[in-house]
Amino acid sequence: MAKGLTRADVLKKAEELKNWGKWGPDDQLGVLNYITPADIANAAKLVKKGKVFRLGLELDEKGPQRGLFGGRWNPMHQMLATGTDAVQGIQEPLVGMRYADDAINLPTQAATQWDALAHVFLGDQMWNGYSATLVDTRGAHKNGIEKFADKMVGRGVLLDVAKHRGVKRLPDGSAITSAELDAVARAEGVEVRRGDFVIFNTGQMADCLDRGDWGGYAGGDAPGLAFETVDWIHKKQIAGICSDTWGIEVRPNETTDGTNQPWHWVTIPAIGIVHGEIWYLCELVADCAADGVYEFFLCAPPLVISRGTGSPINPQAIK
Amino acid sequence: MAKGLTRADVLKKAEELKNWGKWGPDDQLGVLNYITPADIANAAKLVKKGKVFRLGLELDEKGPQRGLFGGRWNPMHQMLATGTDAVQGIQEPLVGMRYADDAINLPTQAATQWDALAHVFLGDQMWNGYSATLVDTRGAHKNGIEKFADKMVGRGVLLDVAKHRGVKRLPDGSAITSAELDAVARAEGVEVRRGDFVIFNTGQMADCLDRGDWGGYAGGDAPGLAFETVDWIHKKQIAGICSDTWGIEVRPNETTDGTNQPWHWVTIPAIGIVHGEIWYLCELVADCAADGVYEFFLCAPPLVISRGTGSPINPQAIK
Amino acid sequence: MAKGLTRADVLKKAEELKNWGKWGPDDQLGVLNYITPADIANAAKLVKKGKVFRLGLELDEKGPQRGLFGGRWNPMHQMLATGTDAVQGIQEPLVGMRYADDAINLPTQAATQWDALAHVFLGDQMWNGYSATLVDTRGAHKNGIEKFADKMVGRGVLLDVAKHRGVKRLPDGSAITSAELDAVARAEGVEVRRGDFVIFNTGQMADCLDRGDWGGYAGGDAPGLAFETVDWIHKKQIAGICSDTWGIEVRPNETTDGTNQPWHWVTIPAIGIVHGEIWYLCELVADCAADGVYEFFLCAPPLVISRGTGSPINPQAIK
Amino acid sequence: MAKGLTRADVLKKAEELKNWGKWGPDDQLGVLNYITPADIANAAKLVKKGKVFRLGLELDEKGPQRGLFGGRWNPMHQMLATGTDAVQGIQEPLVGMRYADDAINLPTQAATQWDALAHVFLGDQMWNGYSATLVDTRGAHKNGIEKFADKMVGRGVLLDVAKHRGVKRLPDGSAITSAELDAVARAEGVEVRRGDFVIFNTGQMADCLDRGDWGGYAGGDAPGLAFETVDWIHKKQIAGICSDTWGIEVRPNETTDGTNQPWHWVTIPAIGIVHGEIWYLCELVADCAADGVYEFFLCAPPLVISRGTGSPINPQAIK
Repeated sequence: MAKGLTRADVLKKAEELKNWGKWGPDDQLGVLNYITPADIANAAKLVKKGKVFRLGLELDEKGPQRGLFGGRWNPMHQMLATGTDAVQGIQEPLVGMRYADDAINLPTQAATQWDALAHVFLGDQMWNGYSATLVDTRGAHKNGIEKFADKMVGRGVLLDVAKHRGVKRLPDGSAITSAELDAVARAEGVEVRRGDFVIFNTGQMADCLDRGDWGGYAGGDAPGLAFETVDWIHKKQIAGICSDTWGIEVRPNETTDGTNQPWHWVTIPAIGIVHGEIWYLCELVADCAADGVYEFFLCAPPLVISRGTGSPINPQAIK
Repeated sequence: MAKGLTRADVLKKAEELKNWGKWGPDDQLGVLNYITPADIANAAKLVKKGKVFRLGLELDEKGPQRGLFGGRWNPMHQMLATGTDAVQGIQEPLVGMRYADDAINLPTQAATQWDALAHVFLGDQMWNGYSATLVDTRGAHKNGIEKFADKMVGRGVLLDVAKHRGVKRLPDGSAITSAELDAVARAEGVEVRRGDFVIFNTGQMADCLDRGDWGGYAGGDAPGLAFETVDWIHKKQIAGICSDTWGIEVRPNETTDGTNQPWHWVTIPAIGIVHGEIWYLCELVADCAADGVYEFFLCAPPLVISRGTGSPINPQAIK
Repeated sequence: MAKGLTRADVLKKAEELKNWGKWGPDDQLGVLNYITPADIANAAKLVKKGKVFRLGLELDEKGPQRGLFGGRWNPMHQMLATGTDAVQGIQEPLVGMRYADDAINLPTQAATQWDALAHVFLGDQMWNGYSATLVDTRGAHKNGIEKFADKMVGRGVLLDVAKHRGVKRLPDGSAITSAELDAVARAEGVEVRRGDFVIFNTGQMADCLDRGDWGGYAGGDAPGLAFETVDWIHKKQIAGICSDTWGIEVRPNETTDGTNQPWHWVTIPAIGIVHGEIWYLCELVADCAADGVYEFFLCAPPLVISRGTGSPINPQAIK
Repeated sequence: MAKGLTRADVLKKAEELKNWGKWGPDDQLGVLNYITPADIANAAKLVKKGKVFRLGLELDEKGPQRGLFGGRWNPMHQMLATGTDAVQGIQEPLVGMRYADDAINLPTQAATQWDALAHVFLGDQMWNGYSATLVDTRGAHKNGIEKFADKMVGRGVLLDVAKHRGVKRLPDGSAITSAELDAVARAEGVEVRRGDFVIFNTGQMADCLDRGDWGGYAGGDAPGLAFETVDWIHKKQIAGICSDTWGIEVRPNETTDGTNQPWHWVTIPAIGIVHGEIWYLCELVADCAADGVYEFFLCAPPLVISRGTGSPINPQAIK
């Protein structure tokens, strides 16, 4: 299939894979429901070396944002008090100590991030059938990111597609199919299980960082999942899908009628699975290649942003 | 000692407990160096029930900030795209999908947070002897929070002082001594070890949340550690010290000459230990009281804010 | 009439005074159309002493905002470069000079401000019948403040109601009627003409500044115009209505059914007149009392905020 | 002159033209002191047609900023309430009315702006000898923009250099000399007087707007004043100098040793004159060419930003 998708095809697939009501009419967790306490306890057993990998990209003005989607900006860092002030002796008379302080202003999807289930709509509705109008200028009154405050913990699996293909990075526009995901897992000797956080590596971010140029990383062409992987995701019953790209799915999209990010129309609002995007995988990729172990404990807590539609994060993969 | 401290006493104690140079002249991690890979692997073994506790306070306009320290504000949540827009059909022609998007603007110390080692100065210097002037309006060029990107993982220990005293919350101005910390640990049957993240509960936040009124929580009077606990912290070689209060140490401070937050002068810049402040402990406290287990796996990653002097966080305690 | 108004009364009055279509179906200026070039040239003749009065309140953290209306905040001033940095010699190597720089973040209605015609809706519509849905998260696609970029210039008239009543400030809840406006003008020997910017003084702001306490200034009880003044405004064909209060109209409102700011429902969307709120009148009031001249040249340009629903301003009254 | 300037030359010229102390040791107005009430009254007489020109560039994401000087950004416009929310009926139950609201976040020098006298330093000092360290993270405790709250009113003179040269725009790197300024004024039949606000047009902004591409407008090469014009400015005793460019002076600068913006080192801190930069002159230029009148009433009030180092503005030229 792939190329040639229309809006109608996308809506039909969304209808087919819809998990609405599966965990009751009040559910706001979606497929995170698949994770059991036993899964978490078992995942912790994957911690053997005591080695921690940060999967969060640095938050600063050098980030990938270029003003898309109504003006997403790179993180702005604001100093409220500095050491240069301190050494002038002007702080002690005011506050009795010498200190630095700062603030940060960023779109929740500026860099490494989780979506909330309120992030993408299907028609006039969002996950579990809630009305899209429940997301207004005061935020997401349903399906907000705060619902995930203690839910982003479990087993992580890395599928290194770039390594499997023997390339540094997949080319833009290259689609990864379900069959390829299975082949990568087989080659790595790792099994994808219910409740897993599946992270796949395309090498795109590492390449941008190496070149010192984001190019069209944010919203331009990119390697990524084929549309048909929605079936794989649905069937595997995984709990999260993450990658080193801006939007997980392949770009240009496989649609021919201007329907943007078709895979998103199915994953978030219909299946109820959220994306971990713009993940920094460099060190984790190297370590997995070195020790051949592609599973680990993943702890990726969102900030508890009330009514947020996403959150900046710094996920930790621990082996 | 306690009451009656002067600036000179504080500086003398800082000099006495200074760890500068202990991990080389280039170190920017401080006592986080105490944590070994084996410590992390052992800490993961504390995950038995597979139960996760979020220790991050909700980030919204109802937070405790009241404009102190040059104007710290409560988190500001800005919607960039809404469902109310989406249902008007105005998004699809523009971006080919229906979605919500948002941004957040907050001081790094607005709510639950880690300090960086750049946060407090001792005279004209900061941790490990770096000049305070290395923290300017472009941020902390040394000792920034990004250095901790993969370091805030290990064994957590809860010392529930409120429970030990048999009160809902400690009164403002009540100092917790080293002896009391030891007594609480003994009563709980838990040992404080090198490299631990020690979290103590005063009940102050829970009380504020119950009353629906923060009162003087941010910068007013509070229960907290006595100044003399700097010796305990130094000797125990713990890796982090955290609580449910705004500033860990007792307020009014034990100084008599206007020296503000004297304990901070010693901990961050001299010992090289950072604080986890404004931690939300409610559910963790209840669970520890119920099962009698006061140790757990702690994963509290900061956002990777380049040159930041702190970070908002949502620590995860996992049992 | 006054007390006892209902939503139905308000809607009826709005219908009665509606100026929609008066200046064509594409108009986005409302009653500013009343001002002619001759009016502006004549107004300039009022400049005799060469004395300028700033009518903008200082923009800083001491402003009146208290989080109303979804969280309006006081202006936040952010330094991007400081003299304390400069003297450390760290700027010259980077940018070849020594300088200070800053930024400001504020609600358009944080302090002294103009509304845009997009600010208040009547049912599902705004001024001149445009759909309210033309104001989305990307801003006001019709009736935005940028339409006024060169329109806020003309004859200003001060009606000092406080002086006329012989009080320092009008009490909260005190309604100013059309008859009283006429009486003040008569006593001052000034005529209110078509195309004028009418500014009335209640003394509320001066009193708050004197006391150093805003109290309920922002959204609490206040002196202000009676609902029936909408007829006076409509008949007089003035071009703007301004005061030293937060919301021009009397509070508590004269409605009995929870309809908030009923006068606003008629003025902005129906008559097409915008408000100048939170104006700082202290020095102007004193000067007019001293020289007995209550008319002047008014130049109150909004910032040219694309698609803005208002703008912070610093109006200049020139005599 | 011109090419080949060194830092030493610049400092020597600054020393030569220093006005420090001229208006007393406490002065924070600089050459604005030249403007008398009579000047303002006379300037008002220039209003004859009653025609108003806005000189403020639109504030939005399409502005010229490209992250220079520690990250200046284009204005960010944030909606706090929308009409799309309003029509869902969710506002009335909350606040009793239907409305839109918004906020703006911008560097004070993002677009059309005034500098404050605190904006540029000379060594460790600023205007009138105040220490540069008086500008810290809490703002400019001396020489802040709020001092100009009622001072930016007077006679404006347009020197249309592009028209005089017979070109649409001056090329980048083209220096305008004192002699040329005099020649332009002569050709226009306008006299530059003490206390004037002199505005010169290079055509650069109009050209960028026409092309729809700012290119290197912000901080790249540009036409502008030659360094030697500091003598002309000093001798003419004008009150302000403004243009349609980013930084008034010619770029590349005439210095050969990396000294950036040498003209700024002399004008702001030594002479005490501030700049009006990024002024939008398109309609004013056309009108002056049409009626041959190059003088007008200028009213360009800054926002009253406490301790600001500049302000966004929308100056009004009135003829």
